[in-house]
Amino acid sequence: MKSRTLVALAIAAAISTASCATTEAPSEAAADTTPPNIIFMIGDGMGFEYISAYRYAMSELGADKLASTPFDDLLVGAATTYPDDDTWVTDSASSATALATGIKSYNGAIGMDANKHPQQTLMELARQNGWLTGAVSTSQVTHATPASFFTHHPSRNMYHQIADSMATPIADGQWSFDVMLGGGYAHFNRDDKNWLPELEAQGMTIVTEFEELPEVQQLPAMGLFAPIGLPHAIDDEPRLASMTEHALRLLTEQQTEGQPFALMIEGSQIDWCGHANDIACAVHEMADFAAAIEVVKAYQAEHPNTLLVITADHSTGGLTLGQGGEYAWYSERVMGIQNSLAFLTERLLEMPRAQWREYLQPRLNLDFSDEDWQQLIEAELPDSERARDQQYALGAVLVPLISKHTRTGWTTTGHTAVDVPVLAVGPYAEQLRGYQDHTDIAKVLLNIVK
Amino acid sequence: MKSRTLVALAIAAAISTASCATTEAPSEAAADTTPPNIIFMIGDGMGFEYISAYRYAMSELGADKLASTPFDDLLVGAATTYPDDDTWVTDSASSATALATGIKSYNGAIGMDANKHPQQTLMELARQNGWLTGAVSTSQVTHATPASFFTHHPSRNMYHQIADSMATPIADGQWSFDVMLGGGYAHFNRDDKNWLPELEAQGMTIVTEFEELPEVQQLPAMGLFAPIGLPHAIDDEPRLASMTEHALRLLTEQQTEGQPFALMIEGSQIDWCGHANDIACAVHEMADFAAAIEVVKAYQAEHPNTLLVITADHSTGGLTLGQGGEYAWYSERVMGIQNSLAFLTERLLEMPRAQWREYLQPRLNLDFSDEDWQQLIEAELPDSERARDQQYALGAVLVPLISKHTRTGWTTTGHTAVDVPVLAVGPYAEQLRGYQDHTDIAKVLLNIVK
Ligand SMILES: [Zn+2]
Ligand SMILES: [Zn+2]
Repeated sequence: MKSRTLVALAIAAAISTASCATTEAPSEAAADTTPPNIIFMIGDGMGFEYISAYRYAMSELGADKLASTPFDDLLVGAATTYPDDDTWVTDSASSATALATGIKSYNGAIGMDANKHPQQTLMELARQNGWLTGAVSTSQVTHATPASFFTHHPSRNMYHQIADSMATPIADGQWSFDVMLGGGYAHFNRDDKNWLPELEAQGMTIVTEFEELPEVQQLPAMGLFAPIGLPHAIDDEPRLASMTEHALRLLTEQQTEGQPFALMIEGSQIDWCGHANDIACAVHEMADFAAAIEVVKAYQAEHPNTLLVITADHSTGGLTLGQGGEYAWYSERVMGIQNSLAFLTERLLEMPRAQWREYLQPRLNLDFSDEDWQQLIEAELPDSERARDQQYALGAVLVPLISKHTRTGWTTTGHTAVDVPVLAVGPYAEQLRGYQDHTDIAKVLLNIVK
Repeated sequence: MKSRTLVALAIAAAISTASCATTEAPSEAAADTTPPNIIFMIGDGMGFEYISAYRYAMSELGADKLASTPFDDLLVGAATTYPDDDTWVTDSASSATALATGIKSYNGAIGMDANKHPQQTLMELARQNGWLTGAVSTSQVTHATPASFFTHHPSRNMYHQIADSMATPIADGQWSFDVMLGGGYAHFNRDDKNWLPELEAQGMTIVTEFEELPEVQQLPAMGLFAPIGLPHAIDDEPRLASMTEHALRLLTEQQTEGQPFALMIEGSQIDWCGHANDIACAVHEMADFAAAIEVVKAYQAEHPNTLLVITADHSTGGLTLGQGGEYAWYSERVMGIQNSLAFLTERLLEMPRAQWREYLQPRLNLDFSDEDWQQLIEAELPDSERARDQQYALGAVLVPLISKHTRTGWTTTGHTAVDVPVLAVGPYAEQLRGYQDHTDIAKVLLNIVK
């Protein structure tokens, strides 16, 4: 028996090498000789657990069925995300660089490998081959994820240089992108330099108010709708779906016969809520991202020669749906919370502590005990100049209380190394099946564009 | 634009309903009119994060490539696991009942629906249709998961009644299973009843030592290798792969022409280490489960008319690979730990506290500071009669120290509601693609057996 099993193990190893799930022929693609449009959606920080949280938050306990979500019919696999660094845990810059170039790098890298050599990105290759390109994000467009698809910098913190790279034409009246929508006004209009009049003079349409976006009829165009990031979806009108709709409208109108586009769409602030360990904030960012996915799925159905790929760069916060030994996650309590912790803590710090309970109760809608309130109201806050330090410290008191009452678990204010979901539909989607590395996703896309 | 998008959304909704990923024809199955053998492997508590942890624990940071694992080429989808109860978070009994019968139930249920009506299980239907059946687990065979595939009881805690159900013949010299391997000797040989001589007299082969297992040549057979659960894999020789090998040998030898078998194999103690928030223990249980998967993959390659399905009943502990804000998970430190917390705390409590540091240091191999040691050695333990209470309390002091030094995150000593992985190869594997509910997995299997 023992030796038979060893032989069988050897056979199995040979077979499993030969019949990799991702090597199937892309049969749909053969029908159309034009390469498909590529829509690459990145939920920043969106580990599997964020999709689970969104699903249960949208559903009603005891109802016959879970709410359906736009993720349901798209899951094809999962991806590892480790960087080329001395850790298994990636940051957004390194992972976006891997997703944009197919090459792993150090944490902080923007479009550069571990030796700080610039690497050609999906968008650059697409541009070189005559594609239209663009990006949409709820962060500043100069943030790590969009920046890694269009620029090359040794550090993600070089926001001004990233803005300069984006603003510099690659030819007369041409930039590295056709459409760029998100936040980041302050990085293009600074004390030392205001790019905006210059860009307009060179033929770029620039808008800074959402109301202007439907009026835009011409590319290249840039929409910068906030000085830095957009407001959290939970605190304001969610914007990703509408920005996505207009980016698709403009790219489709601009396309010439046989000219595909490549568009990156980032749900940027799932990650930001994860860093804050703010579950209600995270679920609302997921809803905004899901609404944008609905828009793209409808577009893909109307334009089937379009490949939609959705993944995350990493998971954030060590989120889980279960905490402190109890077999529960109170989704309806999460959905009762009205604002982000960032929003609430900012306002709390502007009022006397005696008013905190009255202000917070109708906005959290959680059944805090008198001891819980006391713990909050007597919280020791750092004697810092920066208002943000006080906000973080107050958030750090609120998080365990909210976690206890909703049974939401968090383990870190940073990222984790856990594998992320891969979802896809359209030509070549079969090539993204099963386990893969995030660089393999980039290689599939680069291969389509090349 | 707005109305065009609404039309497109409606079209997309219609298409997404029509083209469900799980409706593809099982092309491989058509070639063979005999239904495939079904091997259903359940990693108890094995959320996606356990596969990530196992992968990184087996890999070397900075090496060019990750270690390959038996999971790599098998991932097909993910599953929701919520029970028919007043919570999103399932227990093992309810989820095993769903996986065995296709019907959700309350937490604690063994093969019964929410109204406590017994539901036909995969193994019972297979038996009824002339299949061979069996189970292998590293828990007692009377534990929630195997019990839910073969018996019907209102509570998972009714171990003696579950043993009685398993031991009661369904016909002369026939039981509900052909082979049953695991722990649980104490549930069959009790003060009030010793089933074992009776079972042997009725024609069942019974073994209680691993050394006897290769000698077993005949079914029905039961191997009970520990009074309750087997020792943790990290503390003893791992056993799941070898039990799996012998179960497959016996079932294959016993099969008559056209007679398939259905075998459930559980990596039971991934969950137990998760409850203890014991990362080294969990990774070693994952290695034991992975070794059993290798055996089954080799068998499947040799006998291609075999469907292998692997999933988890839920995730346990809220494990993540990242803790306390640092972008790291120290896999090599995890692999330096020599024993389970259960093993270590039992021994620590038998010696003077003054010896704890000397005893633990070479077994944990972590760089505890003097303050860390002091915190451990001065730990207040409950004045309990039950040694186990003291063990848990000591574990609760060790866990945060180990978490800090390895950057392993845990959020609960219970389960979570996060979706679990689904892996498969063989006929009908295509039907398990994408997102699904765990009852859908059961429905695919029941449909093959019916
Ligand atoms: Zn982040
Ligand atoms: Zn459990």
